[in-house]
Amino acid sequence: MPYPSALNRLIAALKKLPGIGQKSAERFAFKILDWPETEVKEFVSTLEGVKKSLSNCNECNCLVEANYCPFCKENKRDKEILCIVSSSKDLFALEEARIFKGLYHVLGTVLSPLDNKFGEDISLDPIVDRIKKHSIKEVILALDSTLEGDATALFIKNALQENHGIRVSRLALGLPVGSTLDFVDGGTLARAFVGRSSF
Amino acid sequence: MPYPSALNRLIAALKKLPGIGQKSAERFAFKILDWPETEVKEFVSTLEGVKKSLSNCNECNCLVEANYCPFCKENKRDKEILCIVSSSKDLFALEEARIFKGLYHVLGTVLSPLDNKFGEDISLDPIVDRIKKHSIKEVILALDSTLEGDATALFIKNALQENHGIRVSRLALGLPVGSTLDFVDGGTLARAFVGRSSF
Repeated sequence: MPYPSALNRLIAALKKLPGIGQKSAERFAFKILDWPETEVKEFVSTLEGVKKSLSNCNECNCLVEANYCPFCKENKRDKEILCIVSSSKDLFALEEARIFKGLYHVLGTVLSPLDNKFGEDISLDPIVDRIKKHSIKEVILALDSTLEGDATALFIKNALQENHGIRVSRLALGLPVGSTLDFVDGGTLARAFVGRSSF
Repeated sequence: MPYPSALNRLIAALKKLPGIGQKSAERFAFKILDWPETEVKEFVSTLEGVKKSLSNCNECNCLVEANYCPFCKENKRDKEILCIVSSSKDLFALEEARIFKGLYHVLGTVLSPLDNKFGEDISLDPIVDRIKKHSIKEVILALDSTLEGDATALFIKNALQENHGIRVSRLALGLPVGSTLDFVDGGTLARAFVGRSSF
């Protein structure tokens, strides 16, 4: 496109957002140009401020504000179960589902040899420290059902079970709730069969 | 979502981008949090800078850089045909198609009573001035085929044809190139029939 170069720079910057290609970035850019100066300033200061106001909890590594972690500090939570997730986003998704009331631990990364992320990048020491500190009885691995998630789960299971004899579990694999069989892929169907339960 | 409030503010800001809902804004926000500080700074300065480096051409109202309008200043363009578009984005799309070599005029707005945009918001004087200055023979209305585009086209046609007796034309309506009949809506099919040409 024969856009002015400042506009091309903005479009290039917006394309760094996940899932955003040339066309969407162009739409965003023209929308931003339509905003009044004050709105652009507000947007920019929100962007600038977010990193400053957020940090990671020293204990569970979750994204927190003002160094207060609602998940570690809350007394009502069951301190004997630890749920390991790969990112804060996953933690918030679980909280939204109101299904788990134990402790969380955010890995911050997964094993992914293609992206140069190996076992050494996953720090297990804080997890082991917490297991000892809280006498944790079970570790639930709530990781994606992807190659990377599977590899990470296996790596953590091996490290924790062998060295500490703790129960390690993983989220069930099967049909999504509300799904129809004909839209579910073969791999999921196979896992749903293997994991079938008495009824 | 029980996100920290700084994160919620960022998500709310990102939702102002066109077509972006809660889920996409969350993806963007977590991606931005993953960026190193320098990348956020670069992004922010691009956003801040774009309004400063761009302005509107005094003549055609197109978005230009450093007050130099490549469309008005270029000598090779046919100065006897004026193409009216609603936005700079449309102008760039037409330039990309390399179909038109005359002058452009960017309205910057369309008639849209629902958004409180009426005839008075469309300034015809600069168009009339240019028609006189360049002795323009034809005005092409390259406006969207929407209610707003149609209303704007009619408004401009009436104003220009009645007062200045100039030829005013509009882009053809019909089947998109490469389309199949069964995917084209009835309105388009009807216009394609009405506008059929000898073959």
